[in-house]
Amino acid sequence: MVDGIFAIAMTILVLGITPPKPEISQAQAVLPGQIFHLFPEIFIFVIAFLILAGFWLDHHRQFHFVGTIDSRLLWINIFLLISVVLIPFSTDVAGDYPEVLVAVLLFHINILIVGLIFSYHLHHISRSEHLLESQADMKSLNILFHQSLLIPGIALLAAILSFVNPSVSLLVYLIIPFAKYFVDRIDI
Amino acid sequence: MVDGIFAIAMTILVLGITPPKPEISQAQAVLPGQIFHLFPEIFIFVIAFLILAGFWLDHHRQFHFVGTIDSRLLWINIFLLISVVLIPFSTDVAGDYPEVLVAVLLFHINILIVGLIFSYHLHHISRSEHLLESQADMKSLNILFHQSLLIPGIALLAAILSFVNPSVSLLVYLIIPFAKYFVDRIDI
Amino acid sequence: MVDGIFAIAMTILVLGITPPKPEISQAQAVLPGQIFHLFPEIFIFVIAFLILAGFWLDHHRQFHFVGTIDSRLLWINIFLLISVVLIPFSTDVAGDYPEVLVAVLLFHINILIVGLIFSYHLHHISRSEHLLESQADMKSLNILFHQSLLIPGIALLAAILSFVNPSVSLLVYLIIPFAKYFVDRIDI
Amino acid sequence: MVDGIFAIAMTILVLGITPPKPEISQAQAVLPGQIFHLFPEIFIFVIAFLILAGFWLDHHRQFHFVGTIDSRLLWINIFLLISVVLIPFSTDVAGDYPEVLVAVLLFHINILIVGLIFSYHLHHISRSEHLLESQADMKSLNILFHQSLLIPGIALLAAILSFVNPSVSLLVYLIIPFAKYFVDRIDI
Repeated sequence: MVDGIFAIAMTILVLGITPPKPEISQAQAVLPGQIFHLFPEIFIFVIAFLILAGFWLDHHRQFHFVGTIDSRLLWINIFLLISVVLIPFSTDVAGDYPEVLVAVLLFHINILIVGLIFSYHLHHISRSEHLLESQADMKSLNILFHQSLLIPGIALLAAILSFVNPSVSLLVYLIIPFAKYFVDRIDI
Repeated sequence: MVDGIFAIAMTILVLGITPPKPEISQAQAVLPGQIFHLFPEIFIFVIAFLILAGFWLDHHRQFHFVGTIDSRLLWINIFLLISVVLIPFSTDVAGDYPEVLVAVLLFHINILIVGLIFSYHLHHISRSEHLLESQADMKSLNILFHQSLLIPGIALLAAILSFVNPSVSLLVYLIIPFAKYFVDRIDI
Repeated sequence: MVDGIFAIAMTILVLGITPPKPEISQAQAVLPGQIFHLFPEIFIFVIAFLILAGFWLDHHRQFHFVGTIDSRLLWINIFLLISVVLIPFSTDVAGDYPEVLVAVLLFHINILIVGLIFSYHLHHISRSEHLLESQADMKSLNILFHQSLLIPGIALLAAILSFVNPSVSLLVYLIIPFAKYFVDRIDI
Repeated sequence: MVDGIFAIAMTILVLGITPPKPEISQAQAVLPGQIFHLFPEIFIFVIAFLILAGFWLDHHRQFHFVGTIDSRLLWINIFLLISVVLIPFSTDVAGDYPEVLVAVLLFHINILIVGLIFSYHLHHISRSEHLLESQADMKSLNILFHQSLLIPGIALLAAILSFVNPSVSLLVYLIIPFAKYFVDRIDI
């Protein structure tokens, strides 16, 4: 269920990149410029794809610890999926208007919500002995939970920055790999 | 088969939320208002997603009881899937025109049909000894069947209410969690 | 592979039903008529969904006999999938213009090609001892092959009839369940 | 994960074939010509589908050798998937403007990137003893790596040729089956 929806959401991200449709007679002249102007859209597409891929991998990894699913965990997952499924929409809007505050903010808030639900998800598991395969996993899940706060933290930072400069705020996600390098070393 | 189609239908629901496409030069001014006006669309998207998620979970649960599949069960499932696949379409129309009777009615009728086919599905299984893994399941399937009438009942109520006020009729689905709480306690 | 592509093709069939987009101010007046005019589109959608579901089930069933896959069988399957993936496109065109010969013919030819490749697929398996789990299956596969000629036969009949009356030719597929009833009794 | 994304990307290729939408009153007259003009789009669709199917099969085959996945292999796969997911977009653009250099070049470059990442993928595995199930596979993976350079080689050739004649450069992919016949005989 979770796997399928992640895969489909990641693939339909591409439908948000609007193919230019100039008249055939003018295509030779205007198409190069129009394709060149797609680069912000493709950049946001790549960012969104990588963030979703990251969530997917973490979701996969973390599920190794889980033995049973309770009703609350199920609903956390369903709300996680709703916010994941909205990503192709908010990526589309932000890709079309990377200089407009409200469009970019929509994207940051969507990432923020996915990230917060995912962190809450880990928090719930790390506190629920009865869901876990072995009690020894509680400590590592707790570490995972603290590490998982990185993405919502960065999305919040980007959201704040978007009030200053919408386009630049999208670049904030580029610090994820570097930040992750340090955060993966957290050992509380 | 069933799983894949549910996952895809739930994900392409998002394609029904039409991203606003104002001219770049006017986007700064008009986009906030246009995004604000998307809230009914997003509300209906969330409702449809949750209802489909609920059907999916129930379908999954109920299949644990089923040992063999007969030809009639197969065709019930295919007609269930046709009506599920139409949900992204009717959600799209109702999300675009939440104040127009015929658009909202289309959505209610689609949910009603999915719900009725699903109930009939449970009814057929609960009566077909040869399909079940153990005869002891017949009673619990019978309870599930009675509980499953909740969604088509609410959709019918919403359909009737839509003749009075289309927009308000969409709020009827908000009573599902509360109604489910009581219905899950049915024990005939 | 085959399963996923069938499921996705069947689900995106719904994207071919164009949701009407009248101006909000006129929606109340014109939407009922526009939704009413969608019925041919929804009819063709249901036909295409059922035909694809039928191919899927037959493909599934027939794979129980197959032990190994040779290179030719692989390519037959890939060409089968190409023609399956085109069905949402040809269904879309035929649904938009059910009275135009060339649109309806495109649909019939697409179904015809899917059907012929599928029959060739069965023919190849039924003749290839080395692919089968047990030699005893060859006879039942041969029967399946003869039964599988029904769909391309009906598509050919519909294609011919479409030159007389395009709309009526779409109704030819309604005879499938009755024809299947007799064909399933073939025992050569 | 990989399987699902390949299947979805291959299926949504069809969404790039724009169904003609003439006025109902003119459809009888103009639709035949418009459908006839779709042939380049359908040709590129088939090419893209077959290339993706080929990558998919090779990815599948090669994964039999892999026992563990390291972090670099994971990221190679994620970048492979990003470039695969972009194929429906670049196929759409090239299909709409098969005579415009920049549109066709976009397609060739996309295929080139998918091909190069896939070759690098094989190169990484063939050099990483710790990932393989048995050391004996290293030689066969090395052969696979050399064979895998065929597709990026052909895409590069097509990209160069597109500066001379965009439409003709798309035909270069037709030599793949013949080239593959010889390349499959490589035994270093």
